Amino acid sequence: MKIRLYNARVLTMEKDRPIFQGEIWVEGDRIIRVIPKQGEEQEKEKFDREIDCEDNLLMPGFKNAHAHSGMTFLRSYADDLPLQKWLSEKIFPMEAKLTGEDIFYFVKLAVLEYLSSGITAVFDMYIKPDLTAHACMEMGMRCVLTSGLNNFTSSVEAVEEEYEKWNHTSPLISYQLGFHAEYTCSKKLLTQMAALVNRLKAPVYAHICETAAEVAGCKRRYGMSPLLFLDTLGMFHYGGGGFHCVHTRPEDISLLRKRGMYVITNPASNTKLASGIAPIAQYVEKGIPVAIGTDGAASNNSLDMFKEMFLTAGLAKLKEKNAACMGAEEVLRMATVNGAAAMRLTDADVLAEGKLADMILIDLQMPNMRPIHNIEKNLVYSGSKQNIKMTMIGGNVLYRDGKYYVGEEPSHIYREVERSVARLLQ
Amino acid sequence: MKIRLYNARVLTMEKDRPIFQGEIWVEGDRIIRVIPKQGEEQEKEKFDREIDCEDNLLMPGFKNAHAHSGMTFLRSYADDLPLQKWLSEKIFPMEAKLTGEDIFYFVKLAVLEYLSSGITAVFDMYIKPDLTAHACMEMGMRCVLTSGLNNFTSSVEAVEEEYEKWNHTSPLISYQLGFHAEYTCSKKLLTQMAALVNRLKAPVYAHICETAAEVAGCKRRYGMSPLLFLDTLGMFHYGGGGFHCVHTRPEDISLLRKRGMYVITNPASNTKLASGIAPIAQYVEKGIPVAIGTDGAASNNSLDMFKEMFLTAGLAKLKEKNAACMGAEEVLRMATVNGAAAMRLTDADVLAEGKLADMILIDLQMPNMRPIHNIEKNLVYSGSKQNIKMTMIGGNVLYRDGKYYVGEEPSHIYREVERSVARLLQ
Repeated sequence: MKIRLYNARVLTMEKDRPIFQGEIWVEGDRIIRVIPKQGEEQEKEKFDREIDCEDNLLMPGFKNAHAHSGMTFLRSYADDLPLQKWLSEKIFPMEAKLTGEDIFYFVKLAVLEYLSSGITAVFDMYIKPDLTAHACMEMGMRCVLTSGLNNFTSSVEAVEEEYEKWNHTSPLISYQLGFHAEYTCSKKLLTQMAALVNRLKAPVYAHICETAAEVAGCKRRYGMSPLLFLDTLGMFHYGGGGFHCVHTRPEDISLLRKRGMYVITNPASNTKLASGIAPIAQYVEKGIPVAIGTDGAASNNSLDMFKEMFLTAGLAKLKEKNAACMGAEEVLRMATVNGAAAMRLTDADVLAEGKLADMILIDLQMPNMRPIHNIEKNLVYSGSKQNIKMTMIGGNVLYRDGKYYVGEEPSHIYREVERSVARLLQ
Repeated sequence: MKIRLYNARVLTMEKDRPIFQGEIWVEGDRIIRVIPKQGEEQEKEKFDREIDCEDNLLMPGFKNAHAHSGMTFLRSYADDLPLQKWLSEKIFPMEAKLTGEDIFYFVKLAVLEYLSSGITAVFDMYIKPDLTAHACMEMGMRCVLTSGLNNFTSSVEAVEEEYEKWNHTSPLISYQLGFHAEYTCSKKLLTQMAALVNRLKAPVYAHICETAAEVAGCKRRYGMSPLLFLDTLGMFHYGGGGFHCVHTRPEDISLLRKRGMYVITNPASNTKLASGIAPIAQYVEKGIPVAIGTDGAASNNSLDMFKEMFLTAGLAKLKEKNAACMGAEEVLRMATVNGAAAMRLTDADVLAEGKLADMILIDLQMPNMRPIHNIEKNLVYSGSKQNIKMTMIGGNVLYRDGKYYVGEEPSHIYREVERSVARLLQ
C-alpha cells in the first residue's frame, strides 16, 4: 500500500525545522519521502491512495507516555472523593471482579478515544498486559506495555516472560520493564526486579513520587525518598522513567539526571486527585527529558492530549509564578518527540524518511486555530480534539473526519463495555 | 417555526431534577413543552421541523460569563511572555490600530468558536460594543454587553447611552453597566460611574482582584483592596460582579456576600498568565454564586467551556489539597444556571416551558462519554468540544454536526480576519 498525503503544511518536529508546505509519501508502515514543495506538480509515481490534506497540518502523532487503558470502565464512577477512599472503597473492589473479556473491551474503548485525540502510541501499565496487546493489535494501535508488578499481581518471572514475548510478536507492540510503585512492592520483590533489570540491561519504569503520602511512607520505611531508595537497589543502572514525579527534591532531581531517566508527567490526573503540581520547569532546566501521559480514565477522566498539553504549560506557569515559563514549543516536543524517546519508540518520533508512518492531520479550518500567528502555540493553548482530522498509525488511516476504521463499530464496543460494567456493578 | 426535539435524554438543570428520557418542543425563540416520556408515541401536533436526538443529551447551553470576543485576533500572537511586557509591548500597540471592521469580524470568529463549544450566550467587554452587538445579531448569537470604560476609552455618558440603546434593540442583546478595573480608572471616573449605578439602580461589573499587583497597587493608592475601595464609592449598592477575583481576602469575600455579588472565574486565563488560583471553594462555602468565563483569546487562548469546567473543578481541588472538593454537579451549575443569573439572563437558565430555547445537544456516542456512570461528571471531567452535536440559540439551530448555519461561511470570516491581521501587523 502506497499512500500520498499532499497539499499539507508539514511539522516534522525535527529540531529547528520550521513548518513548510509539502507532501509525505508512505509505503507499508513507513514514511518513504518527505517533500517540501508547493503547488500541484506530482512526480510520475503511482499511489494506491492519495489524500488531499487541504492545507491542514501533518505532524507526528501524540505519544501518551503513561496510561492504564483498561481503566476506562471506571470513568466517572467514583470522582470527587478523597484519594484513599476512592482507591480502597471504589476502585479496588471493582477491579477485583475483572475478567479478561472485560479488560479487552475496556482497552478498545480507550483506543477509540486515543485515536480521536491524535494519540498514535500509548505506554500502558495494567493488569493482564496480554489483553491490552491483543486489543491494540486488533485495532491497529501502537502500544508499549510495561508491567504493573506489585505484591498482589504478577511476578518477576511473568515480567521476564512478557518482556521476551512482546518484544518479538508484533511490530505494533513492544515491552519495557516496570513495576507499580515502591509502596506496593516489598523490598524483596523490588530486589528481584532490580536483578532482572541488571541482567537484561534494560530501563525500568514505575510510579514515583506521585503523592506526598507516598514519599513520606517511603521515608518512614527506608529513610529516604522512593527514587533514592530504589536506586540503592541498583534499579536505575540502565535508566528508565518515573510516572508523575510530583513530589521530588533537589537530590531526586540530581539522581534523575545522573541516571538519564525520563519524567512522565500527568497533569490532569495530578490536578483532579489533588496530588500537586510537578516541578516541570526545574526538570527542563536541569536537562531531564519530560514526556506527557493521560494516566487512566478513572482519575483523569479523559484521554485527551490537548488537555494535558495546556495543563503542562499552564501549571508550570502557575507554579513558577511566571507567564513566560514553559513555552508551547517545548510542551509540543514533550507530547511527541520526548514521548517517543521515553517509550523507546525511536522510529516514531519525527516525520522523516524511514520513520514509522504514525501521524495526524490537524484541522486548521476551525475557529480555534484562527488566525494563524503561530501554529505550535495554537496547538498547545487553543487546540482541541475537535481539530483531529485524521489519525494514521503504521501507515493505516484509523480515524478520519469523525469515523473509525478499526475493523469494528464503536457502537459494538460501547455495548460490550456497558454489559461488562453492568455485571461488575452487581 | 415549531420544532420538536425528540428521543433525547434531558438535563433541564432545574434544581434536583434528574436526567430523564423525553422531548422538548420549541416555538419561536421559546421552549413551549418539556415532556418526560419514552417511546415513539407522538401527540397529534404539527411541527415545521423534527430533530431526532438519537438518545443524546439535551441541556441548557453554556454561558460564557466573561469574555473579550474581539480579541481573537491576538490568539497565539504574544504568549509565553511576562504579563506587563505582553500587555504594553504586544497587546496595546495592536489594539491601537483597530478599526470597526476589524472588530466586527474578530467577534464573528469568536462566535464560531462559541457555537462549536456549546456556548449560547456571552458576557462581553470590549472596545466599541456596538460592533460586537451587530456581529452577534447577524449570526444569531446571544450577547450581554458591558462596558470596558477606562481613562482612555469611552465615557460614563457613552455607557448610559449604550445601556439605553442595547437594552431595547434586539431580543438577542442586553447591556449591563461595567468598567474595566480600578487600576485603569481615575477616582473621578469611578465616582461618576458609581453615581450612574445609583441613578439607574443597576448592578455593575468589572475586573476585580485579578492579580496580586493590582491589589497591591490599589492598597498603595487608597489603602484598601479594590473591592473595598470601590464599595466606599457606593459602586455595589445594586450588586453586580467581579471578573477573576483571584486575590481576595476574607473581608473582600464578606463584601461580595453582603452585596449579593457574583464571582466570574476565568481559570484558563489565570493559569496561562500565572495570575494565581481563585479561592472558588471558599466562595461556594460562603454562598457566593460563581459563574465561569473564558476571558479573551489573547490570554486563554481558547473559548472552550469544557476546558474551563475541568479547570474550575481541578484547580479548586489542587488549591484546597482535597480531591473531594468542588464536585462536577456544582461546576456544571456554574457554567449554565449561575452564568445566566450573573448575566441577568433570567429566561436562559434552565430548560422549562416559557424559557428561551438556548440549548445544546451533547453527543454521548463518543468514547470519552462511555461508559455512562454519571453524565454530569462525564461532561465536566471528560467532556470536550468534540461532544457538541448541536447548538441552538433562541430556537435557531446555528451549529450542527460540525456545520454552521449563521448566514455566512466560516471560510469568509477567516479570510476577513487574516486580512485585518495582516494589516495590523504591518
